[in-house]
Amino acid sequence: MGTEARKLQGEVDRPQQELQTLKAQYHSEDEELITISDYILKRLEQLNVTSIFGVPGDFNMHHPTIQWIGNCNELNAAYAADGYSRVKEHSIGVVVTTFGVGELSATNAIAGAFSEMVPVLHIVGVPSTTQLKNKPMLHHTLGDGRFNVYTKVAEQITAAQAIIMNKAQAAAEIDRILVEAIIQARPVYLTLPMDLTTEKISAKRLKIELPRTPPPNNPDVESYVIDEIVKLVEDAKRDVIILVDACAVRHDLREEVNDLLVKTQFPVYATPMGKTSVSEEYERYGGIYIGSITHPSIKERVENANLILSIGALKSDFNTGMFTYHIPARHTIELHSDHTLVRHAKFPDIGMKWLLPKLTERLSKFQEGASRIPVPHYKLDIPKESDDKISHAHFWPRQDVIVAETGTSNFGVMDVPMPDQCIFVSQILYGSIGWATGKHSQVSLLNLHLTGNDSIAARDRHLGRTILFTGDGSMQLTVQEISTMTHNKLTPIIFVLNNKGYNIERHLHGLDRKYNDIADWKWTSLLTTLGDIEGKLTQSYTVRSKSELDKLLDDEDFVSARKIQLVEVIMDKYDTPRALQASAALTAQAAAGQL
Amino acid sequence: MGTEARKLQGEVDRPQQELQTLKAQYHSEDEELITISDYILKRLEQLNVTSIFGVPGDFNMHHPTIQWIGNCNELNAAYAADGYSRVKEHSIGVVVTTFGVGELSATNAIAGAFSEMVPVLHIVGVPSTTQLKNKPMLHHTLGDGRFNVYTKVAEQITAAQAIIMNKAQAAAEIDRILVEAIIQARPVYLTLPMDLTTEKISAKRLKIELPRTPPPNNPDVESYVIDEIVKLVEDAKRDVIILVDACAVRHDLREEVNDLLVKTQFPVYATPMGKTSVSEEYERYGGIYIGSITHPSIKERVENANLILSIGALKSDFNTGMFTYHIPARHTIELHSDHTLVRHAKFPDIGMKWLLPKLTERLSKFQEGASRIPVPHYKLDIPKESDDKISHAHFWPRQDVIVAETGTSNFGVMDVPMPDQCIFVSQILYGSIGWATGKHSQVSLLNLHLTGNDSIAARDRHLGRTILFTGDGSMQLTVQEISTMTHNKLTPIIFVLNNKGYNIERHLHGLDRKYNDIADWKWTSLLTTLGDIEGKLTQSYTVRSKSELDKLLDDEDFVSARKIQLVEVIMDKYDTPRALQASAALTAQAAAGQL
Repeated sequence: MGTEARKLQGEVDRPQQELQTLKAQYHSEDEELITISDYILKRLEQLNVTSIFGVPGDFNMHHPTIQWIGNCNELNAAYAADGYSRVKEHSIGVVVTTFGVGELSATNAIAGAFSEMVPVLHIVGVPSTTQLKNKPMLHHTLGDGRFNVYTKVAEQITAAQAIIMNKAQAAAEIDRILVEAIIQARPVYLTLPMDLTTEKISAKRLKIELPRTPPPNNPDVESYVIDEIVKLVEDAKRDVIILVDACAVRHDLREEVNDLLVKTQFPVYATPMGKTSVSEEYERYGGIYIGSITHPSIKERVENANLILSIGALKSDFNTGMFTYHIPARHTIELHSDHTLVRHAKFPDIGMKWLLPKLTERLSKFQEGASRIPVPHYKLDIPKESDDKISHAHFWPRQDVIVAETGTSNFGVMDVPMPDQCIFVSQILYGSIGWATGKHSQVSLLNLHLTGNDSIAARDRHLGRTILFTGDGSMQLTVQEISTMTHNKLTPIIFVLNNKGYNIERHLHGLDRKYNDIADWKWTSLLTTLGDIEGKLTQSYTVRSKSELDKLLDDEDFVSARKIQLVEVIMDKYDTPRALQASAALTAQAAAGQL
Repeated sequence: MGTEARKLQGEVDRPQQELQTLKAQYHSEDEELITISDYILKRLEQLNVTSIFGVPGDFNMHHPTIQWIGNCNELNAAYAADGYSRVKEHSIGVVVTTFGVGELSATNAIAGAFSEMVPVLHIVGVPSTTQLKNKPMLHHTLGDGRFNVYTKVAEQITAAQAIIMNKAQAAAEIDRILVEAIIQARPVYLTLPMDLTTEKISAKRLKIELPRTPPPNNPDVESYVIDEIVKLVEDAKRDVIILVDACAVRHDLREEVNDLLVKTQFPVYATPMGKTSVSEEYERYGGIYIGSITHPSIKERVENANLILSIGALKSDFNTGMFTYHIPARHTIELHSDHTLVRHAKFPDIGMKWLLPKLTERLSKFQEGASRIPVPHYKLDIPKESDDKISHAHFWPRQDVIVAETGTSNFGVMDVPMPDQCIFVSQILYGSIGWATGKHSQVSLLNLHLTGNDSIAARDRHLGRTILFTGDGSMQLTVQEISTMTHNKLTPIIFVLNNKGYNIERHLHGLDRKYNDIADWKWTSLLTTLGDIEGKLTQSYTVRSKSELDKLLDDEDFVSARKIQLVEVIMDKYDTPRALQASAALTAQAAAGQL
């Protein structure tokens, strides 16, 4: 089924779902029944979910069919669900925790998914409906009879909540929040009382799949907006560039964007959060734009264009070089998931999912002219340095990168062009350290699970190999997930950039603050200690010089090993990537009220 | 100053404080000034705080005088502050985190402190006041302009919040929440914008110390209540017992309770959460009461008493043997921090802090009769077992225990009488696993810091030695705090009970659920990997049999070592302490609606 047809099917299904909600209360006795747990799992299967993350707790659900990945703690489990959702696309992440003590530990990761628009279902096993009504002083409560506290917390950081209290409402509520998760690309929250998991409800509703697209735009307004945009493109006399940002991927527009690029041939650039949303080997791709931190040649081409068509912009501080875009609104069109901006005019409820394909058709007539605009391919060279110390300037151009931690790694990787079909994931807006290792247990798992699925496995050139870059400081927050990786026999390569502390904090708030130094660990025995007791599943290395690094990266055994490998990279305490230095300077100015 | 005088001083100081609040806005230019950061630190000094816990973040405060303990993550830091507060008494715990990504990770630990009534100050470094007002799309935000989300979360799990937005309100707000933390014995929340930390305010207010006691009771009602209680004690014809629970310690009544015990000589029992609130070597101490799980001889003496004077009761499920108290209200008087129950009558606002000393005076006349009631001393024997496997029945009677993890350890330790002046801390109501290792970095620190302070150091027989019991499952949640311990050169003994998974969950929800099995770790290389690179600061052991365990515990070098020591204790997967078996059975019945 094509994109358009799939979307229209969604429109047909929508009223059908509502009908089912009403009918659920009157189902006849002879129809097929299913437990509420299984109902959820069936829906998740339909959404291509193959793994669920979590920590066992005394109120947990059982999960017979989809693979259960037990993480070491709930924060890490929720990070894993976030990562699963980002990497897999067309699906959602799922994390299961327990009432209070479990779910609250996941709070930070769920807030991060909200901030960065990642669809995650957070299922919380709660006490029985009788206990929820009578409110005894149970363990895991605050002891003051307020049983709704945790839900109030969830309301702050999720897009929708379903508090299941009886079986009649269960199916409709589950469906409602799943649709919200997909359409809004945000986390949602579901509480499941322990006595209801095995209660049986009608399975009939499952026959209609959940809609995955937002409702269509008002056709009159939409066609008016398209006319306006086409007019502006004409006025721009070919000099149009496209800027792709995070929401293009989060709202599942990769295919539509690619279609636009191919049919129009306009030059395309990406933001840091949009990195790899467009293939970086694509001949019309010109590099990354981050306001005043942008490389001068790229900056000039973006900022001097007559018209900028921005898709899915998310203008956070670190994504825009501390709000230093030099692009006047009168030269800008912004397509968003739920509105469109044409210069200064806002069109509420005109969303890009329906608008973009129509726009592409209208803009394809500009192809010939557009294809004549030159787009120099940006290439990052390894600089010649006089010493053998491993510097950021030397390290990053040598990497094909997939996962980068918030912090120093994120800035290092920004300038690195990536091979085609690489998936780059990082957390730039919310910026919680520890995120990469936490979610990493998932990223690798994903590759492992999908080896039988050509369409997805082929997306990764390196035979499903996941590479994680993290700092020593960040790694310490979520280190126990190494255990989940060995337990599940994954084979990522983990680079730990050891610079003895929180490098990004040093550059933001004072190079020699003592509290940014951290305890040094014996990094090379981490893998064996945390699970690989016999030392057969893992291999660890320390590299201290450019020559040692180069030798390892060129070693065929290293590149093709079917083991987890950890590489401790010794770096200078104060060395730092270019993009971080520039961002830190701007952040300090902003904090001092100078920006 | 005696207790009474100290409390009266508080009453004198209260209106003085209010006066200062008003005067703050009109301070003259020649008076002493102090930065807001230093104001907070001075107040904390006055509250005997010697260490502050946290993780560096880009909005953090500086802390020049009080010792900064950098934890590996915020959950662990907040657990450490919780533990510090519990063990130190007459003080509070302090944790510093950063806006959003930091503070949310601490949520679970703060909720635990709320649930278990532990005073903790949570200081959050937030963006500048200008940024808070203009609401740009900053990193660490949810990207939707809602800058008050994190405060709304904090409102759910803290007793008071202070959102500092200008220097005029700062001192009064800081004082207000500190007083709330102490009086309510709950966590409180303070946000400090980065541009205000170095702003200067008047230091004058610091000359008046903060009140530490609640306001006095209404004298008429109080004297009526005392008369009622004395009448009931007379009617009970000597047959009165005292039952001490958690809130007696949390609301700082250890001294008053001790006075009551000595002057009346009534037999005294404790609940699990009240364990060690009364010396377990005290000759009139009869043991632990947990409803139907109580040892039969103790159960009979408690439940058959004519009158039970309960102090600071906190009737949670695990603290009451799943709500199986067999004590009729007509035989009960309950003293609480903010009300009193005399049989079925409730007296709101009559709190025990002021009532108890007066009641003690009135009840002292019963001493002679009371002292004739026999109190058999409860002693736990090591059972004779035919095999050499280390069982819970064998293990626990051999320990002098200080810190026990939620989970199996908590139940194991319940029946163990403790040496005089031991401090036992555990988390029974909230029950979040991982808590012990997280907070442990603190408990040891405390002993280390206070070696110069005889009154506190002497409370611990073992020369300040802290012993931590934890399970393999629990330990994995917060394991990185090992690093904080080695980094700060602490010397606890850590027993890891290795039974290959979540034992308590097995007993609550099915012995053979696969998700309760966890990855095995090389426990004996944990200390060297996570910080003791040269292997000089730590020592690790594995014990597999009763004889190996006994040999180690009798080894003088082990007992007196000035190193961190980790002992991996290999136990049977299904072996379990008596109290846990009984609780698990009752919990399962409650969940099934049979209780």
